[in-house]
Amino acid sequence: MTTAHDVVGIGNAIVDVISHAEDKFLERNGLVKGSMTLIDEARAGELYDRMGPAIEISGGSAANTIAGVASLGGKGAYIGKVCDDQLGDVFAHDLRALGVAFETKAITGSPSTARSLILVTPDAQRTMNTYLGACVELGPDDIDEATIRGAKVTYLEGYLWDKPTAKEAFLKAARIAHDGGRKVSLTLSDSFCVERHRASFRDLIDGHVDILFANEHEIMALYEVDTLEAAIEAVRGACEIVAITRSARGSVVLSGPDAFEVAAERVGKVVDTTGAGDLYAAGFLYGLTSGRPLAECGRIGSIAAAEVISHYGARPETPLDRLVAERSAANPA
Amino acid sequence: MTTAHDVVGIGNAIVDVISHAEDKFLERNGLVKGSMTLIDEARAGELYDRMGPAIEISGGSAANTIAGVASLGGKGAYIGKVCDDQLGDVFAHDLRALGVAFETKAITGSPSTARSLILVTPDAQRTMNTYLGACVELGPDDIDEATIRGAKVTYLEGYLWDKPTAKEAFLKAARIAHDGGRKVSLTLSDSFCVERHRASFRDLIDGHVDILFANEHEIMALYEVDTLEAAIEAVRGACEIVAITRSARGSVVLSGPDAFEVAAERVGKVVDTTGAGDLYAAGFLYGLTSGRPLAECGRIGSIAAAEVISHYGARPETPLDRLVAERSAANPA
Repeated sequence: MTTAHDVVGIGNAIVDVISHAEDKFLERNGLVKGSMTLIDEARAGELYDRMGPAIEISGGSAANTIAGVASLGGKGAYIGKVCDDQLGDVFAHDLRALGVAFETKAITGSPSTARSLILVTPDAQRTMNTYLGACVELGPDDIDEATIRGAKVTYLEGYLWDKPTAKEAFLKAARIAHDGGRKVSLTLSDSFCVERHRASFRDLIDGHVDILFANEHEIMALYEVDTLEAAIEAVRGACEIVAITRSARGSVVLSGPDAFEVAAERVGKVVDTTGAGDLYAAGFLYGLTSGRPLAECGRIGSIAAAEVISHYGARPETPLDRLVAERSAANPA
Repeated sequence: MTTAHDVVGIGNAIVDVISHAEDKFLERNGLVKGSMTLIDEARAGELYDRMGPAIEISGGSAANTIAGVASLGGKGAYIGKVCDDQLGDVFAHDLRALGVAFETKAITGSPSTARSLILVTPDAQRTMNTYLGACVELGPDDIDEATIRGAKVTYLEGYLWDKPTAKEAFLKAARIAHDGGRKVSLTLSDSFCVERHRASFRDLIDGHVDILFANEHEIMALYEVDTLEAAIEAVRGACEIVAITRSARGSVVLSGPDAFEVAAERVGKVVDTTGAGDLYAAGFLYGLTSGRPLAECGRIGSIAAAEVISHYGARPETPLDRLVAERSAANPA
């Protein structure tokens, strides 16, 4: 079968609006540190008025991952919904400039392109407040069958589960991928997202997911257990491959009866953790679709994640293919 | 007289779109490294399509300076023209979030808010391509007399000279400031800008400017001389205070018969020189309007400039008041 892309990502197409904030700003505004909260347009306006000066960078979990795959030298495609406004142009540009195929039809008029107001506290943690805007218009009709069939992996973000039509789009894509003998990958996205959708996420993972990404909090929330070991026990066998990220403690990769521990890459100074999980998935999926062993997939994931947390924003600043080549030369496996 | 603000800035209200580029990208697209070129909407679209992924940060020379003054703890106001579109909202937010008064009426519809497509090469030099958009609508009616009369210093960017109505606005503001016993400050902005307007800049400086900012290339271009010494000779006496920046070699401050050399602050790694001159002016004007001696004004300018070249974008990432307090504690005068 013809492979046009290594990975096609489906997700909420979002522009990040990133600002510094002190912990007391979070408290005063009732924000839970480290979480992603969905907000409406009025609340977005209110919060934006209170926030400090910001920078705008394309984001969106799955889109960050596809940007990472492309930066590593892989072929990526993306499906997500923007409006034909200035931020929609920014979002589309930033993917296409990396060679990513992005053909989803933009809506005209309103709602506007989605924004996530991201507060980065001095501990480099990010707290996200997302106005979904045009993203709510994503539906099954946006899932292009040829694109899904032509990609080695279809990668889905758990955040899509928050809207019924996006969920339908998600399931349609998973069916097409499997019918075509392709792999389906999911990221759990966020512990609160897992809390909202626990039962259906578990069904989904059992029935449709080959490669699962989660951080340790998300996977423990999914199985309502208190230790990583118990979560590993519970998820083992549910998917072909499971990669669990553990911040500075690296990641654990499960494959059938095997488990690998992958060390985190050293980072000079952690500036903003936004996108760490997205870029880990990028490195891992790039490794997998280019035929690398799992331990190396995890290592490329760690390198990509380390780059993105060393600066503001969830997209790589340094071309990742160059970075991986440098690291491999410095530390041959 | 009542002083509502320390500095009011008048300039082109621009959102910067910043991307990495290799030197060969500049060559292929006929761009002159280090310059600011005015481009039309079609050319902006063409260049944007060719550029890599970018980040969006509010910019505009005088607006960067006012943001710096506010970040240092000074009171700033700004006059400049945006459109009521998403980038216009971003621009207004980023000033107001710093406590800057920004009341200029936005236009509706088109042209859209100005953008500067900035290519940062591996040597950290920036090459700017500016689509002025809504800025061309700035005119004398936008100059609010009370705001000018209420500010210790009215700060003007040379770039305004490129459009006749902005030039009129500029001259109106200078007249109001002087009639009210206030100071007028000008930055020459860019060597090419000086080449375009040499004669009228010289008239302006002789007749209307009390505090002049320029880098060494701009001041030499203004007087058509080949050495800094000759330029200093020529400008001496034309204004009350002249501050000439010299990149890594610091700055020279002239005041009547006196001249001070101010060292540059050390920077770990120069990432993007965009905004260096703007932030030097911010520090200098903050020092001046808070009654510091000239040598200290220059030093605060150097600290602010060093901060902004250590990361992408022309607005401070670290609150400058904190930075100046830290440096002063570390190196008491």
